[in-house]
Amino acid sequence: MSTDTAPHCHVEGKLCMPEDARKRASRRLSIARGHLESIVRMLDDEGVYCVDVLRQIKAVQGALSGATEVVLRGHLEAHVATAGERGDTVEIVEELMAALKYA
Amino acid sequence: MSTDTAPHCHVEGKLCMPEDARKRASRRLSIARGHLESIVRMLDDEGVYCVDVLRQIKAVQGALSGATEVVLRGHLEAHVATAGERGDTVEIVEELMAALKYA
Amino acid sequence: MSTDTAPHCHVEGKLCMPEDARKRASRRLSIARGHLESIVRMLDDEGVYCVDVLRQIKAVQGALSGATEVVLRGHLEAHVATAGERGDTVEIVEELMAALKYA
Amino acid sequence: MSTDTAPHCHVEGKLCMPEDARKRASRRLSIARGHLESIVRMLDDEGVYCVDVLRQIKAVQGALSGATEVVLRGHLEAHVATAGERGDTVEIVEELMAALKYA
Repeated sequence: MSTDTAPHCHVEGKLCMPEDARKRASRRLSIARGHLESIVRMLDDEGVYCVDVLRQIKAVQGALSGATEVVLRGHLEAHVATAGERGDTVEIVEELMAALKYA
Repeated sequence: MSTDTAPHCHVEGKLCMPEDARKRASRRLSIARGHLESIVRMLDDEGVYCVDVLRQIKAVQGALSGATEVVLRGHLEAHVATAGERGDTVEIVEELMAALKYA
Repeated sequence: MSTDTAPHCHVEGKLCMPEDARKRASRRLSIARGHLESIVRMLDDEGVYCVDVLRQIKAVQGALSGATEVVLRGHLEAHVATAGERGDTVEIVEELMAALKYA
Repeated sequence: MSTDTAPHCHVEGKLCMPEDARKRASRRLSIARGHLESIVRMLDDEGVYCVDVLRQIKAVQGALSGATEVVLRGHLEAHVATAGERGDTVEIVEELMAALKYA
């Protein structure tokens, strides 16, 4: 029995992403894509300075970390926290650890 | 109902670390400490070269990532995967995200 | 006097990116942008699975690290390694450390 | 000719670490070692909580990044910035990129 308000998400028996996380991740990644486009344009200018490019790439990496955070939080809430009930804890944790590249 | 073989760990109503993860993390961190000691000794030698020190620090950082992996895996299996049953999913995920510094 | 074959780059007295690094970084970032676009499309599918998205974002982060490596190497060779001759070592190192976010 | 105030360091024809960086890195790593010792002791307590351990490891990783910053800055100022004068730019940059694990 759960008093939980966390999102659950299953489509036709398969785990899938909670809608809110999906929309928010999409928005963040769209912004990161636009930012990457502007860096590619910067690089058309032969006067562009290395350190300015390094800073811009760093900013995009920050945006990707933000998107990872949204997706990871949704996954932990919707799928990892319910693994005990489903009985697939070891598998789902292994899968996540591999995706995070700790394992 | 769970068919799970994942470790659970509660001491007097409080969540605590699965014993196996605790022992393995301790061993890894002890090794990292010994490695750090040897870097501190390296630095007593005025002929030590910067890049050798950078490489050694990198190796210790790898060892700490290994310890983080052990602790995180144990936490996901023992506590996050059972959050749906306990009903504290949102809190436990928030706490973990903060510790991982995504949030 | 230098026997160096490293690239140097100055346009109208300003430091700028060696052309080879600029072209290679541009290619890598263009590929990363295409990859990001495909992740944004993945996220239009409501059946998409969190861990697949995490893996894809991780791959783009790897591509951005590759681009950073290209730009950083070019900067070190063309501008940092010549700082002693120009006499702006402290400034150029400070600027780089700040961009790398160590400082 | 250089108007630079950056540290240079050679011992018997070999590059070595500027003394100030050496002392500061040593101090930081000694503190990190003490911190690691206290985490190992925490892990002797069977009631220790995973997330507390994750936070402490994160703090040590921050301290190691701080030590890396000190060593890297010293290396860039003393050795990379003078590579053009010595004529070993390509080698010294390659060595550093490998140590930073970008390459």
